[in-house]
Amino acid sequence: MRDKIDLNCDMGEGFGHWSLGEAADEDIMAVISSANIATGFHAGDPNSMDRVVQLAKAYGVGLGAHPGYRDLQGFGRRYIQNKPDELVNDIVYQVGALREFGRRHGLPLQHVKPHGALYMEAAENEELSVHLIDMLRATCPDALLFCMGMSKTYDIAKAAGQPVVREFYADRDYDQSGSIVFKRKVQQLDPHEVAQKCVRACKEGKVRTVSGEDIDIEFESVCFHSDTPGALDIGRAVRQALLDNDIRIVPAAAVVEQNL
Amino acid sequence: MRDKIDLNCDMGEGFGHWSLGEAADEDIMAVISSANIATGFHAGDPNSMDRVVQLAKAYGVGLGAHPGYRDLQGFGRRYIQNKPDELVNDIVYQVGALREFGRRHGLPLQHVKPHGALYMEAAENEELSVHLIDMLRATCPDALLFCMGMSKTYDIAKAAGQPVVREFYADRDYDQSGSIVFKRKVQQLDPHEVAQKCVRACKEGKVRTVSGEDIDIEFESVCFHSDTPGALDIGRAVRQALLDNDIRIVPAAAVVEQNL
Amino acid sequence: MRDKIDLNCDMGEGFGHWSLGEAADEDIMAVISSANIATGFHAGDPNSMDRVVQLAKAYGVGLGAHPGYRDLQGFGRRYIQNKPDELVNDIVYQVGALREFGRRHGLPLQHVKPHGALYMEAAENEELSVHLIDMLRATCPDALLFCMGMSKTYDIAKAAGQPVVREFYADRDYDQSGSIVFKRKVQQLDPHEVAQKCVRACKEGKVRTVSGEDIDIEFESVCFHSDTPGALDIGRAVRQALLDNDIRIVPAAAVVEQNL
Amino acid sequence: MRDKIDLNCDMGEGFGHWSLGEAADEDIMAVISSANIATGFHAGDPNSMDRVVQLAKAYGVGLGAHPGYRDLQGFGRRYIQNKPDELVNDIVYQVGALREFGRRHGLPLQHVKPHGALYMEAAENEELSVHLIDMLRATCPDALLFCMGMSKTYDIAKAAGQPVVREFYADRDYDQSGSIVFKRKVQQLDPHEVAQKCVRACKEGKVRTVSGEDIDIEFESVCFHSDTPGALDIGRAVRQALLDNDIRIVPAAAVVEQNL
Repeated sequence: MRDKIDLNCDMGEGFGHWSLGEAADEDIMAVISSANIATGFHAGDPNSMDRVVQLAKAYGVGLGAHPGYRDLQGFGRRYIQNKPDELVNDIVYQVGALREFGRRHGLPLQHVKPHGALYMEAAENEELSVHLIDMLRATCPDALLFCMGMSKTYDIAKAAGQPVVREFYADRDYDQSGSIVFKRKVQQLDPHEVAQKCVRACKEGKVRTVSGEDIDIEFESVCFHSDTPGALDIGRAVRQALLDNDIRIVPAAAVVEQNL
Repeated sequence: MRDKIDLNCDMGEGFGHWSLGEAADEDIMAVISSANIATGFHAGDPNSMDRVVQLAKAYGVGLGAHPGYRDLQGFGRRYIQNKPDELVNDIVYQVGALREFGRRHGLPLQHVKPHGALYMEAAENEELSVHLIDMLRATCPDALLFCMGMSKTYDIAKAAGQPVVREFYADRDYDQSGSIVFKRKVQQLDPHEVAQKCVRACKEGKVRTVSGEDIDIEFESVCFHSDTPGALDIGRAVRQALLDNDIRIVPAAAVVEQNL
Repeated sequence: MRDKIDLNCDMGEGFGHWSLGEAADEDIMAVISSANIATGFHAGDPNSMDRVVQLAKAYGVGLGAHPGYRDLQGFGRRYIQNKPDELVNDIVYQVGALREFGRRHGLPLQHVKPHGALYMEAAENEELSVHLIDMLRATCPDALLFCMGMSKTYDIAKAAGQPVVREFYADRDYDQSGSIVFKRKVQQLDPHEVAQKCVRACKEGKVRTVSGEDIDIEFESVCFHSDTPGALDIGRAVRQALLDNDIRIVPAAAVVEQNL
Repeated sequence: MRDKIDLNCDMGEGFGHWSLGEAADEDIMAVISSANIATGFHAGDPNSMDRVVQLAKAYGVGLGAHPGYRDLQGFGRRYIQNKPDELVNDIVYQVGALREFGRRHGLPLQHVKPHGALYMEAAENEELSVHLIDMLRATCPDALLFCMGMSKTYDIAKAAGQPVVREFYADRDYDQSGSIVFKRKVQQLDPHEVAQKCVRACKEGKVRTVSGEDIDIEFESVCFHSDTPGALDIGRAVRQALLDNDIRIVPAAAVVEQNL
């Protein structure tokens, strides 16, 4: 049974005048241990990045780049046909941009987590995952790559020696195959139920699927989304329930160390 | 009299399907010693950046970030009202993006040169220059800041200890005040005349103004623009004339060392 | 004393995944008589335009194009240097886009209201106002041009024969010159006070300035902003107070008819 | 045997500072009879649209909207996952924008031709074609819809009563199925050969495929691309060869009339 876990959330997902989610960034930061910061292609802008990086520093939260498709209107949730090497160039660009804000405020890059449709595409597209991980080996061989346990991304990263963090989705449903069930609009969830789901996943390594059966699940980080309705309540409930069960919440880098 | 000088040019100023300038990037790279690489806000995209950084590496050319206003349509040549700290966030973002491509290909950042209207705005706007240089002190204290000798940027960088490189514009005219005369469209220039102007500026430290008198000019780098008609011929003529006058062409970092 | 007035509000000012303001569009539509619909350059996208145009049709609200600077990040609130004829091309583009959604849903264009910094720039820039109104004379000579009474825009439109609507700003303060006092962030306002200010302006043609004196004000439309905190409460209070004072709220076209 | 045909070309495919193709717009306009004008999402901006619409007017060329995916970097040549109704909103927006420039300069909309990946997607995606044509029935029931003869778009437009124009691609190869063979980069073509291919298609209704056999082909317009190397020479050769064979070149609307 595990005694520590990472809790991650996407952050800085507004753009210019617009913000996303009801909760204040400070409140979310106080709950999590790793932040995936939007890097300007699907959301986020240099001002939000500068602000959120400073918050991550202040709250001791692990710094993650959250690169996406170049698609502000679609929030990076639409697949865009592209060549893998060009997509990886987009990721280099975005990771570098975020890392520079980290350098400015004395916070090194902890992890990289592709966003939305890019995350899903990499999970299934071997060629894209190979290009992505080749690039990370060259530019940030110590950065953790966040992904699903059941994905090309995970398999290839493992084989290449890139450190990986598998995620468990607190606010998404799983199907029998271990995949998450995509919904364009996520409904209001009961924070207590979500929290218990996370505790069980941490303690027993199991999650109930939409079809009512249990499957095994392995992960180093629990993810929730800041635009899920009631995100802050969910995050707080998950945090409290984990702590109540003697599971400490620490940045992903500290969880992974344990595994080595 | 000087025995070496830097020769710089803006590079990678296309976007997606579009390119700029008639010359091939390889041909320009063979002429210059420092490249100012467009970083995606006024021109350039991750693919062009990746490609041009590799060229800079192959040709032994100093790597420079060339950040601009967020204005693809206006090519960064239009002033946009903004708060200095927000503009500097834009610069952090763009410098970081370029630096990541440099890291990928083993080429460290040599310099930063704001583009177009942002360069001109910084030259006159003390508050912007202060914010810009404060940021550089924190993120890249060794990076050379390219600017005009007659500018707030130069004065403030000097005072703050940020290394600076002053530019001489091969393909622009000067007025009596030492400022360059802005033109929306630059006419076809005689490469030989441009080359002689550069040689004289290097050897005598003087340039003839539009009103026909000489002024003194100090600089560490000669600049020409890849979208000036006949840019490659101009670059080649300048290079050859400098070499013929025993002035070596070396990256700006090597010119500045000489000054220390 | 007037017996009818227009009540206008900016609508559809989200972008993609992001929305603006706390109130539902339907609720705002039920309060106003003219909608200024964001046309995609500073806010709004084809999906929001399609949706909001249908709402305007359903609620009997006058259809207005609300073109802005091409500046999603700055929400069109930053001045961008440009040539007047090019800015007017931007407006042609945006007005045409909105008008096509109106055609689709059977709602003709009632008015054009430049947004934010473009509205302010036109107010002071005679050349821009001349170009703008020349264009409107050619493309939509019957469309009402919304502007401030104290502006180049108003003077030139009047002289050229383009129908104009002057605005009174419910949620902004006035100075002694009759100009509105710009604030980057508008504070929470008391809906009742705002409503009484509007009633007085309608009945007496006077408004109290920030320096405490009264000035005369003429207008055909009252404007409030959907991103002012408590916008819906303000809109409802203004509407109710006007109705309580026997001032009917009708689309601007019906107010202007009265003046002819 | 036909005595008239339309000759169409994509126009205005630059953006801001960038242009596309080697030929001057005026030279292309003198060759063609219908222009597909880029409407800002994949290429084109309000300034290019204003300029090209005036050229179309001056040269008696039929005015066409050429809407694409929102993808400047990919030039609209990459598939983007989207809901059909949202894609059609994008098309409404772009068609309206172009139509407004037409209104400004007294040139009515003749046709609509989706660009690149959007054209190909509509050809195969029945739901998208249905949404597109429903929209055209409502907003411009007389506008010609340009498409391939072998496409869902053609079948559905025909059935719905939307006037259609089928295209023959001068500078693309055909396969046995009657589809064009996609190439990311089109090679230099022999203008004379292209011209003879067009003449034969017009006179005999046949084209030789890449596998060397003839297939039947029906069309009302011949298309060539302004970014094909040597586009102007190709266009001129095609025009001359058609005229030499007593086939007049007239806007698509005049070709279609003949068919009614």
